[in-house]
Amino acid sequence: MTDPNNFTIQTNSGLYTDMYELVMAEVYFKEKKQDQPVCFDYFFRKNPFAGGYIIFCGLGELLPVLETFHYHSNEIDWLSKQGFNKDFLSWLEAFRFKGTIRSMQEGEVAFPLEPLLEVQGGLAEVQLIETILLNYLNFQSLIATKAARIRYAAGDCYLSEFGLRRAQSLGGISASRAAIAGGFDSTSNMFAAKRYDIPAVGTMAHSYIQSQENELTAFRKFAESEPHNCTLLVDTYNTLKSGIPNAIIVAKEMKEKGQQLKAIRLDSGDLAYLSKKARKQLDDAGLENVEIVVSNQLDEYLIKSLLDQKAPIDSFGVGTSLATGQPDAALDGIYKLSEINGEPKLKLSENIQKVTLPGVKQVYRFTDETDSFVADAIALADEPVPSKMIHPYDIEKSKSLDIKMATPLLHKIMDNGKSLLENNEPADIAQFVKKRLQKLPEEHKRFNNPHIYKVGISEPLHQLRSDLRKKYRM
Amino acid sequence: MTDPNNFTIQTNSGLYTDMYELVMAEVYFKEKKQDQPVCFDYFFRKNPFAGGYIIFCGLGELLPVLETFHYHSNEIDWLSKQGFNKDFLSWLEAFRFKGTIRSMQEGEVAFPLEPLLEVQGGLAEVQLIETILLNYLNFQSLIATKAARIRYAAGDCYLSEFGLRRAQSLGGISASRAAIAGGFDSTSNMFAAKRYDIPAVGTMAHSYIQSQENELTAFRKFAESEPHNCTLLVDTYNTLKSGIPNAIIVAKEMKEKGQQLKAIRLDSGDLAYLSKKARKQLDDAGLENVEIVVSNQLDEYLIKSLLDQKAPIDSFGVGTSLATGQPDAALDGIYKLSEINGEPKLKLSENIQKVTLPGVKQVYRFTDETDSFVADAIALADEPVPSKMIHPYDIEKSKSLDIKMATPLLHKIMDNGKSLLENNEPADIAQFVKKRLQKLPEEHKRFNNPHIYKVGISEPLHQLRSDLRKKYRM
Repeated sequence: MTDPNNFTIQTNSGLYTDMYELVMAEVYFKEKKQDQPVCFDYFFRKNPFAGGYIIFCGLGELLPVLETFHYHSNEIDWLSKQGFNKDFLSWLEAFRFKGTIRSMQEGEVAFPLEPLLEVQGGLAEVQLIETILLNYLNFQSLIATKAARIRYAAGDCYLSEFGLRRAQSLGGISASRAAIAGGFDSTSNMFAAKRYDIPAVGTMAHSYIQSQENELTAFRKFAESEPHNCTLLVDTYNTLKSGIPNAIIVAKEMKEKGQQLKAIRLDSGDLAYLSKKARKQLDDAGLENVEIVVSNQLDEYLIKSLLDQKAPIDSFGVGTSLATGQPDAALDGIYKLSEINGEPKLKLSENIQKVTLPGVKQVYRFTDETDSFVADAIALADEPVPSKMIHPYDIEKSKSLDIKMATPLLHKIMDNGKSLLENNEPADIAQFVKKRLQKLPEEHKRFNNPHIYKVGISEPLHQLRSDLRKKYRM
Repeated sequence: MTDPNNFTIQTNSGLYTDMYELVMAEVYFKEKKQDQPVCFDYFFRKNPFAGGYIIFCGLGELLPVLETFHYHSNEIDWLSKQGFNKDFLSWLEAFRFKGTIRSMQEGEVAFPLEPLLEVQGGLAEVQLIETILLNYLNFQSLIATKAARIRYAAGDCYLSEFGLRRAQSLGGISASRAAIAGGFDSTSNMFAAKRYDIPAVGTMAHSYIQSQENELTAFRKFAESEPHNCTLLVDTYNTLKSGIPNAIIVAKEMKEKGQQLKAIRLDSGDLAYLSKKARKQLDDAGLENVEIVVSNQLDEYLIKSLLDQKAPIDSFGVGTSLATGQPDAALDGIYKLSEINGEPKLKLSENIQKVTLPGVKQVYRFTDETDSFVADAIALADEPVPSKMIHPYDIEKSKSLDIKMATPLLHKIMDNGKSLLENNEPADIAQFVKKRLQKLPEEHKRFNNPHIYKVGISEPLHQLRSDLRKKYRM
């Protein structure tokens, strides 16, 4: 029977994992290998949305979960019924993650192949957190990236996230967090607003208008009830002939009472055409201060098109495409073993692009004299800052680097299972995202065929990969 | 600051909603209209995945949530700080959903425009559950539909859901439920397996192989530890030259001990080519019983292509495309007011396809003499079974119907806030899905340009919509 206690989800449940992580942990335990020191990298291979970068996000929510990730006694009982070994389950019941994590800062602009995060610890513990780590970081990075793209299209317009109704079930909660981190101003999602302390906004539905005798009465009553934050939805019957004229009547009545209609909202039709007509009708009525909010299946491309057409829009509500990261719906981030017992390891593949990078590593970002991002080099953690990098796949290509212009991107953010993070509120991340994206040249931010940002590997890392490929090929 | 109690998510929290639902409820409360009797419909406009149908899913998880949906006192305090009215918040603190819901059975095959579910109750309560209802039903219907499509492609092969690592955060939990409902055999997601009592499966990762001296040692140790459920991953180094030959050595060693290697798993490369080669190598070694499991970015099209090529595959692991419903990522289901105070209502639009259907309704499914589905008619709830239906948009087209072959699809499943549901376990739903899809003609199930299933409206419903359009147009 389905779990009766099914209204509570513990986000730090040790069961939030794939079965194979537990099967492998059990095998490691039986072989007494659970504490062998290992390093795993988290990285991705392809920018989402055919774009030029990602925004790394999810860390601030993941780390507290890892700090407390554990198996409740009723979960241990259930695992026992699934056939797991008794001694292993005793070990698992006492299990706490005590590893060390080096990571890019949450909100960093990052690129394919780079380790965004490296986890070091005992073999079993580092394996057991794989699924939850990927689940948090892949999704929030996807959504923060989408939000940053929409922010790029929208310039300084106000942006609100409206996606909960079509979000992927409870995924809508962290979607709102990542939307704010990526550059949105607010959300309609009250659960997320409380959980993450982010601004909530809301207007009205068509049903409100329909529930009243007529549209004008509906607008009047709403304005009476919500005079300080009144946005009127004008497309229930006929936007230009009924909705906007009725909104203008109410706006004038509010003015007489010393109140201010905040905005009208368009939720259907041709938003470029309607927003221009609406602006003119409002301006002609002396209502220059009344803003225009639009929504209806928007994404970065539609917003860019509306603003390219000089549509006089102040604020956009973006739902499904943002909260689900359409059309990609997932970031392909992976988590791969790079070292065990101090020995670097790699996974082979016929395809050089799928061979993993061995060893504990560091990522250096190189900037130019204007502080713009120029290139990133992946190096071994114990080598000096590289003065040259090699193309990761086309190894005859290389680029020399000015070591004075390098900054390491991976820093210790979890030590022996304790988080060292501060300032991980969505608004803090958003500040950092904004600052970092300003340093990324425009050609990497454009939507159509963005210029590929240069990511290379150091000579010693290249050499190590090459030696290991030969060794495993025998 | 972020909520400190952030490891617990209450799925029946009243805050799991968009702000505008609360703003409207407040306005209704101030106008003393919160109890006005209304009816809202849940329906969708476009089949996902360019397919011919959806599988309606999520109901069994939604109803218990609605039964207990409430505002905790700390949520009321937070809403008070957001500026909501004190009297309204007293009402909200005592709020429980007491409405009545008529719905299709969970797992029903359904089509665009049909009310899948109708909610009747007081204006405020029916409004307050809009977001959570859409959030549950849209996502689980999307995923159950994807799962049904993959099952259709896979025939009788074993199907396991592996998506948690790239799922949309906690959305991965109900994705596993919907995957089983839609026709999958098992999941890798342990949290979902316990929560919904569904079978869990797991094999090993590349890191397990890499962590051992060499592949053969890894296989031997794994077989020793997991002799009863041993699937060996053969693509870490070289599938044909190393992985399969090593698996064969271990399979023979197991045979000598009276054990059985269950399967080998291919996770990269050309799965048609490799599975044929693997099958031959295994058969030549007398290991006809060892199965072949494949994974790696599969979806219904790739599975169909593999089986069309006669790839000798026994079992598929499907992850991202299933758990996130790629490439659509969302079902466009909506929730619209259809009646208030006994008066039918509609939302106008320039586009007839976006005009909603007024009134409390029933959906009748018509079958032929072989019990196959022929057409669905949407009618008013209080009219007799229609003997004719009209095309919903092209009103000059009509089709006569045999009233003896009609079955109503909407049944009361919640009465005064109490669920009447039984048998809502994923395995029960899966049984029903299977039975219903057998009655849907093949031409609606194919992937390329499926034939459009006929959905019409009754004469009285058409007349009502027509009268109301005239009335609102003035």
